[in-house]
Amino acid sequence: MAKRKSLRSDPCPVARALDVVGERWALLVVRDAFDGMRRFGEFQKSLGVARNILADRLQGLVEEGIFSIAPASDGTAYQEYVLTPRGLALFPVVVGLRQWSEAQLFDTGEAHSTLLEKQSGLPVRPMQVVAHDGTVLQVSDTEVRKVRP
Amino acid sequence: MAKRKSLRSDPCPVARALDVVGERWALLVVRDAFDGMRRFGEFQKSLGVARNILADRLQGLVEEGIFSIAPASDGTAYQEYVLTPRGLALFPVVVGLRQWSEAQLFDTGEAHSTLLEKQSGLPVRPMQVVAHDGTVLQVSDTEVRKVRP
Repeated sequence: MAKRKSLRSDPCPVARALDVVGERWALLVVRDAFDGMRRFGEFQKSLGVARNILADRLQGLVEEGIFSIAPASDGTAYQEYVLTPRGLALFPVVVGLRQWSEAQLFDTGEAHSTLLEKQSGLPVRPMQVVAHDGTVLQVSDTEVRKVRP
Repeated sequence: MAKRKSLRSDPCPVARALDVVGERWALLVVRDAFDGMRRFGEFQKSLGVARNILADRLQGLVEEGIFSIAPASDGTAYQEYVLTPRGLALFPVVVGLRQWSEAQLFDTGEAHSTLLEKQSGLPVRPMQVVAHDGTVLQVSDTEVRKVRP
């Protein structure tokens, strides 16, 4: 299989993001971590992939700074995979995918899980792109422009 | 190459979403459409993939209801690929990936494009997960629960 073209240095932030988390298994692992998983065996059970493949993938996510490796929280000899700040910052992306899917890919009346705020038990708000003043924006209200940092 | 396991009927909305848009080329095509591209040749030039591969991928996105095929807007014989409401609804996901990348994958001082509101010329707000009352939520403030629709 030909090696895919790297977008890791692409000037487009979307392309660069997809180079790091653009294969579906990557965000599935991050989802599992958001659900509280930390151990190799937990991820393996959830994802159902071979040990060597999962080990490679987790290693890749560690190299990209999305997970760090930590000693087991219960004092045993296990090591755990813990989301770094960079990994935790993917929360809005995963929630966006979840909400898009809930609205678009489930039949009316088809049961599914949803994301709730613990304190109130109410669903989180739909993810929306908003202007600095809080106005909800559609694609046509926006433009991509090169800016100096 | 073994056919990957389908997650299209997975009860987890995140998994189901990734079955549809979880390969990096899919969201790159959607990004290009958000940037105004509509024609096969435009996508091909942007993505640099072989015609037959791109044709298969666009066909798949049409079958998933993300693009529809329309006659050329200028009255020529070309056909155009136009985002459906389902495709347009991916806007917060793509913006989330962009902002994550801008914050996490670019060096300090490294130039990149950013997404602005046309009217004000100001950047759109950072995507955040918020509660019904507008409070910004971290992963630990939330839980996934099965709800009846």
